[in-house]
Amino acid sequence: MAQLIADRRDVDFVLHEQIGMVDHESFDEFNKKTIDLIVSEARNLAIKEILPTFKDGDEIGCKLENGKVTVPESFKRAWNLYCEGEWLAMCDDPEVGGQGMPKLVGCAALEYMVGANSAFMLYYGMTHGAAKLVEAFGTEDQKKRYMKKMFAGVWGGTMLLTESEAGSDVGALTTTATKKADGTYSIQGSKIFISAGDHDLCENIIHPVLARIDGAPAGTRGISLFLVPKYHVNDDGNLGDFNNIVCTGLEHKMGIHGNATASLSLGEKGECIGTLLGEENKGMAAMFRMMNEARAFVGMQGFAVASAAYMYALDYSRNRVQGKYLLAGKDPAAKNVTIIRHPDVKRQLLNMKVYTEGMRSLIYYYGKCSDIVRITDDERLRADTSALIEVLTPVVKGYVTDKALEVCSHGVQVYGGYGYISEYPVEQLMRDSRIFMIYEGTNGIQAMDLIGRKLGMNKGKSFKYFIDQMRKTIEEAKAIEGIEALVEKVDHAVSRLEALAQKIGQRARSEKVLNAYAFAHPFLEVTGDVTFAWMHLWRASVAAPRLVEKVGSLEKKAVAAKAEKNKDAAFYAGQIESARFFIHTLLPAAYGKMDAILEGDSCVEDILDVSFGSK
Amino acid sequence: MAQLIADRRDVDFVLHEQIGMVDHESFDEFNKKTIDLIVSEARNLAIKEILPTFKDGDEIGCKLENGKVTVPESFKRAWNLYCEGEWLAMCDDPEVGGQGMPKLVGCAALEYMVGANSAFMLYYGMTHGAAKLVEAFGTEDQKKRYMKKMFAGVWGGTMLLTESEAGSDVGALTTTATKKADGTYSIQGSKIFISAGDHDLCENIIHPVLARIDGAPAGTRGISLFLVPKYHVNDDGNLGDFNNIVCTGLEHKMGIHGNATASLSLGEKGECIGTLLGEENKGMAAMFRMMNEARAFVGMQGFAVASAAYMYALDYSRNRVQGKYLLAGKDPAAKNVTIIRHPDVKRQLLNMKVYTEGMRSLIYYYGKCSDIVRITDDERLRADTSALIEVLTPVVKGYVTDKALEVCSHGVQVYGGYGYISEYPVEQLMRDSRIFMIYEGTNGIQAMDLIGRKLGMNKGKSFKYFIDQMRKTIEEAKAIEGIEALVEKVDHAVSRLEALAQKIGQRARSEKVLNAYAFAHPFLEVTGDVTFAWMHLWRASVAAPRLVEKVGSLEKKAVAAKAEKNKDAAFYAGQIESARFFIHTLLPAAYGKMDAILEGDSCVEDILDVSFGSK
Repeated sequence: MAQLIADRRDVDFVLHEQIGMVDHESFDEFNKKTIDLIVSEARNLAIKEILPTFKDGDEIGCKLENGKVTVPESFKRAWNLYCEGEWLAMCDDPEVGGQGMPKLVGCAALEYMVGANSAFMLYYGMTHGAAKLVEAFGTEDQKKRYMKKMFAGVWGGTMLLTESEAGSDVGALTTTATKKADGTYSIQGSKIFISAGDHDLCENIIHPVLARIDGAPAGTRGISLFLVPKYHVNDDGNLGDFNNIVCTGLEHKMGIHGNATASLSLGEKGECIGTLLGEENKGMAAMFRMMNEARAFVGMQGFAVASAAYMYALDYSRNRVQGKYLLAGKDPAAKNVTIIRHPDVKRQLLNMKVYTEGMRSLIYYYGKCSDIVRITDDERLRADTSALIEVLTPVVKGYVTDKALEVCSHGVQVYGGYGYISEYPVEQLMRDSRIFMIYEGTNGIQAMDLIGRKLGMNKGKSFKYFIDQMRKTIEEAKAIEGIEALVEKVDHAVSRLEALAQKIGQRARSEKVLNAYAFAHPFLEVTGDVTFAWMHLWRASVAAPRLVEKVGSLEKKAVAAKAEKNKDAAFYAGQIESARFFIHTLLPAAYGKMDAILEGDSCVEDILDVSFGSK
Repeated sequence: MAQLIADRRDVDFVLHEQIGMVDHESFDEFNKKTIDLIVSEARNLAIKEILPTFKDGDEIGCKLENGKVTVPESFKRAWNLYCEGEWLAMCDDPEVGGQGMPKLVGCAALEYMVGANSAFMLYYGMTHGAAKLVEAFGTEDQKKRYMKKMFAGVWGGTMLLTESEAGSDVGALTTTATKKADGTYSIQGSKIFISAGDHDLCENIIHPVLARIDGAPAGTRGISLFLVPKYHVNDDGNLGDFNNIVCTGLEHKMGIHGNATASLSLGEKGECIGTLLGEENKGMAAMFRMMNEARAFVGMQGFAVASAAYMYALDYSRNRVQGKYLLAGKDPAAKNVTIIRHPDVKRQLLNMKVYTEGMRSLIYYYGKCSDIVRITDDERLRADTSALIEVLTPVVKGYVTDKALEVCSHGVQVYGGYGYISEYPVEQLMRDSRIFMIYEGTNGIQAMDLIGRKLGMNKGKSFKYFIDQMRKTIEEAKAIEGIEALVEKVDHAVSRLEALAQKIGQRARSEKVLNAYAFAHPFLEVTGDVTFAWMHLWRASVAAPRLVEKVGSLEKKAVAAKAEKNKDAAFYAGQIESARFFIHTLLPAAYGKMDAILEGDSCVEDILDVSFGSK
């Protein structure tokens, strides 16, 4: 049977051979066997229970009828099984009801589940993020009242930031909070684009809401965070009255129809009461603490959907017979072949393969970094790794989701006309994937974050630490036979990126700041390109010696002969090919882009509004 | 009011200032005033009558009920007005009922109409293509019976090539034609993915059908073309019996819902009769004669949809207020600004602008080439220009539609979250645009056509002629003050493309043919990049002297001051900015891609099927 959603061999490779677990006693119980079991369980749940909801999500979608929002019926069984399996808090502390699993392992589990239905797993994402807010900033009472039920998925969570005039500019929001005599707040306002904003998967939904306390300063400095339940929760834990959060509409979207994107009105026809979460006017700071996790989860969505598209396209190309082999020439006796044998299809599949693999390595690596920050006893390492996470976040969110759309689009193309119709899954995957470039901060915002905040963090030392990690891999790879050309090229790429980062960092601090921001997205793109080159070199440096072990040499014919019979040899050979394709064939375009960024033509700053076209 | 669909000033610039009409007596009646009237009429029809059908097409779509296919009701009025205006055959000979308009002018008219609703205009495209087949290959009887009604849009047309096992590989088709005693043929088979395959816009549909006559050779050499009406047409021109072409299903697609993509069964429950169109076993040759026009029309679709997306995004960015101006720093008194002032949004708009403009210049230029071939008295010029059309076709179809998706995706991004919901038009435009990369030969097929057929055509002289046309523009631009840097860069780009074309052409004829084809699509991409650089240099070389005329110099401040008050100055300044952005900022990436093609790493050929992932 064809592999679905993800290539398990590659998942295992990244988990055990490339990235590897943090070596720490608190992870002792997570030996290879345990991890394998966890990943297999997650895969089973994903394929048997979540994947069957994929089409329902798209075709039935969410409905708002008589004030009630419903999800497709099949979502409920999948949600219950997902919660019963205690997956929602798999990586959280046992204290809050979690399983304490390493994030690295969590990545593998999530990859399968998100790849099965990203719209469905957004209910998890929103609930988990909201629960983490309660864990981080909640009072004892708030925790007791809400937290465990959220981590268990009994109650859902959301995040109410966006308003119609406050999207990327959160500080413009107008929702108000008026303090009452009992210390609670009366909330009034309208929020839009609320993912998982209302639904019938859970009996209650706990909304973290950004609002401005009466008299608070304008802009982001006057924003506070509140916890506002859909139904009040009594002291005994039972549900009380409706809290006047009304769903006023659901958006009709290009994709992720299975997730309810709601407009919510708070306190319009009856009082809506919330409690302060964290400190007054510190709402933005609280949001920022959760932002890396939220953005990384969007990167995960892009990655998982791309991986699924790759698996489908690969399987299709191995079964679809169309046209003769190019080298058959005009031989009338030549039989038609499967399309994977056509060079242009192979090129597209390789494209999909190398981006999917780059994403997997980067995202798992990011997961491991989170593990290090959580458990290491080495303070210096913790600080460095925290900073590394900051630098990597825009790449994980922005670059990965940009490329995810491209991978899905390749998937459509490999299917040809069939790719455009909803009978095949790639059509939906491509539509679903388009939102990832937008929500949790558009990719333009990510690019500005990289240039404006991350490059200069700790006086540039954080970015330098990121460069150093790449250099470490390069140094280690120098000892490996057979990958010399790859090492040399990646070494060059990293040096060019480092030099470019200094230039554009200077530009961002100079009077040419507009120019720096005009090249923010191209800079994010080349940073991502070099990061993926790094990941592929790392993969190749692990794979090459193992391939030699299996085959006896790296000689082409010997490798091919062995690979046809031996799955490991085939896999390792595929790793070298991926690295070659990415580094020799795709990476050179990044140099052209770097040249353009370096030159920094001022066209974007110079062009006048009127010159874009008459009004 | 904001401009819709296309920037009229740019349309006029390309028509009259950049490309210009072929100087020939048969076009004498098409002076500037007449052309302006035609374009204004087309724009009116597009905006007032076709654009209102855009959403209906998507939301209501086509329906198959009780064996009947219906289009949205609003399509009918628009179709009737479109036909009454005699737009369908606007560029065809008066003899066949056409208006004899230059194709160059037709481009401008089509751009508005296709940009208003590409799914709707596909009914035109299919009908026109079928009518041209009848015109080119029909007997007197066939012409008399069908042609004029098709050119008038009273009857529709289609093209029945694809079968479930014969897509890109047309030669694999299995539909049969059995000769009857009266010389007609009994047709049997099933066709899929038939655009405009069945509908209620017209009382009859005339299907050109590819089928194999009993006993004909296998593959493409045994394919014949037939004319098969939905309803028989009696000698008196009235409709006769149903011809047993049954619509068995409509595809559910990502986009272009307004066009019926039908599965058709021929002769299954009753005889289906067709007449031979052209010669026996020469069906593929006939198709090939129509192919350039069909492919150019797909390029037009990509372009027009991209242009519409740009107009919408530009208008949105001028009205949407969000966030403070970057240079306002932390000034709390600073007001929020329209998003067009943010560098990252401007960068995206410039991206959309330069690709849309490049498309417009290229497609209009292609239209002019068609005019030359049709009317020139210079045989040598006709032959050269015919060959140039062959070389340009894969760029017009492949490169333009690849970039059209990107432009639409930028459009979605400029709108942010609003871009993803169907309340705004860019969401639909992006979905609609995705098919253009697939139908009429996937863009992979286009790339192979460029490498495999066009590069070597006339021993490479055709491609050389294409290069020469670029050089001519470069030479002329050398005389223009103020664009020296642009000239130098495009000169370099053209030289690099020429050298690369020689190398990859050689490779395609060597034992490294697989390698050449593995780089076919990247080669198409850089060919398109350089073509667009050429078009932008051409534009700048026209605009620069006119800007000097308006302003007195090209000095930045003087230009800006004048441009704020004078629309022409603003437009010409925008042309220089476009050229700068494309040539300085986007073109460098093409050099990196060229380096990779030159290096020609053999990874695509080398990787084994098993190394893509286990089965």
